[in-house]
Amino acid sequence: MTEMKENMRDFIPEPVLRRLPWYLAYVSMLKDKQVEYVSSTNISRELNVDASQIAKDLSYLSIRGKTRIGYEVAVLERELGEFLGFRRSHRAVIYGVGSLGGALMRDSGLSRYGLNIVAGFDINPDIVGSTIGGAPIFNVDELDRRCRSLHAEIGILTVPVDHAQEAADTLISAGVKCLWNFTPVRIRVAEGIVITNTSIYAHLAVMYNRLDSLG
Amino acid sequence: MTEMKENMRDFIPEPVLRRLPWYLAYVSMLKDKQVEYVSSTNISRELNVDASQIAKDLSYLSIRGKTRIGYEVAVLERELGEFLGFRRSHRAVIYGVGSLGGALMRDSGLSRYGLNIVAGFDINPDIVGSTIGGAPIFNVDELDRRCRSLHAEIGILTVPVDHAQEAADTLISAGVKCLWNFTPVRIRVAEGIVITNTSIYAHLAVMYNRLDSLG
Repeated sequence: MTEMKENMRDFIPEPVLRRLPWYLAYVSMLKDKQVEYVSSTNISRELNVDASQIAKDLSYLSIRGKTRIGYEVAVLERELGEFLGFRRSHRAVIYGVGSLGGALMRDSGLSRYGLNIVAGFDINPDIVGSTIGGAPIFNVDELDRRCRSLHAEIGILTVPVDHAQEAADTLISAGVKCLWNFTPVRIRVAEGIVITNTSIYAHLAVMYNRLDSLG
Repeated sequence: MTEMKENMRDFIPEPVLRRLPWYLAYVSMLKDKQVEYVSSTNISRELNVDASQIAKDLSYLSIRGKTRIGYEVAVLERELGEFLGFRRSHRAVIYGVGSLGGALMRDSGLSRYGLNIVAGFDINPDIVGSTIGGAPIFNVDELDRRCRSLHAEIGILTVPVDHAQEAADTLISAGVKCLWNFTPVRIRVAEGIVITNTSIYAHLAVMYNRLDSLG
């Protein structure tokens, strides 16, 4: 039991964690279509990932396929969701309720993937005191107290560029263990703090360049 | 002149395209603070990127720093924005105006990075015929005609998992050259079509795993 739990908390390589959601999306679709079993060969054909790679990726889970039949779809779907943390609630706050921050608070899809946004923080008096998607918006000067009492473990950074590092520091000193950075700023954090960058603008830059290269 | 133009359209390695927006964010901040010159050593210290790497990355641009003084901040900011395509308008349509799709249409920040969302498509009669952020929402059965007359080059995929591939195929047959895929589905496209995946759910998975690994 303990060993199992320790396994669950192992550091999994990022490429594996990026592929597993593909399998989950495909398997969820099969489940909706009432398909009962799926083999790694099926997944391989559908997603264009090597079958041996899929078997290797799935070996991180405590699920085994049956010879000639494959994996039970419902079980694989549940195990993938659990393994990826989508079935546990993770408490998050948003710093910066502008267009993107507000959009994330409104995006009910995130809660289906385990992200529970419990509050937003901003300095704009027009929105402080209101709620978006059921979560209250507080003034940033309440951040420390609120973060602690809400037991927030994730801080989502959607502030303007010139406030990004300062906002990150404030969140971390309020006990947040993990930053999800949507700003184009390279945030510096101390060891032991997790930082995940979702660089929408970098993705745009790559996209534009590839588009222009088509000629 | 032609050579210059051809250079602009060169295929730039993805790591470079991911770092350049960091420099742009930093340089924009300096510009707001009325700083006139910046050296790659300054940028290096601030962003924790090797100075020789920065000089190499910036060598893709047609800008040269002055010895001992560095780069002119205002010029570097403009050149970076232009090089990254943020100062040109790219016409995009959104397929799937649910919570995330609607949020992207509402996010005025994207237009400052060159993304001009000209229309949304959905099947929900409650929103078809309305506008979000100034852009009209049409029924998906008008997609082919509308995409062509709007000269959309980018299609943003924010549909449910089970419609993702079909939506992608529809966009491409309507003349879209590039897909920005927000679904967790691995979309298959023909050669010559650009696809950029922004896997929010994969980022969540990585974040949760790193958080759990902290113990």
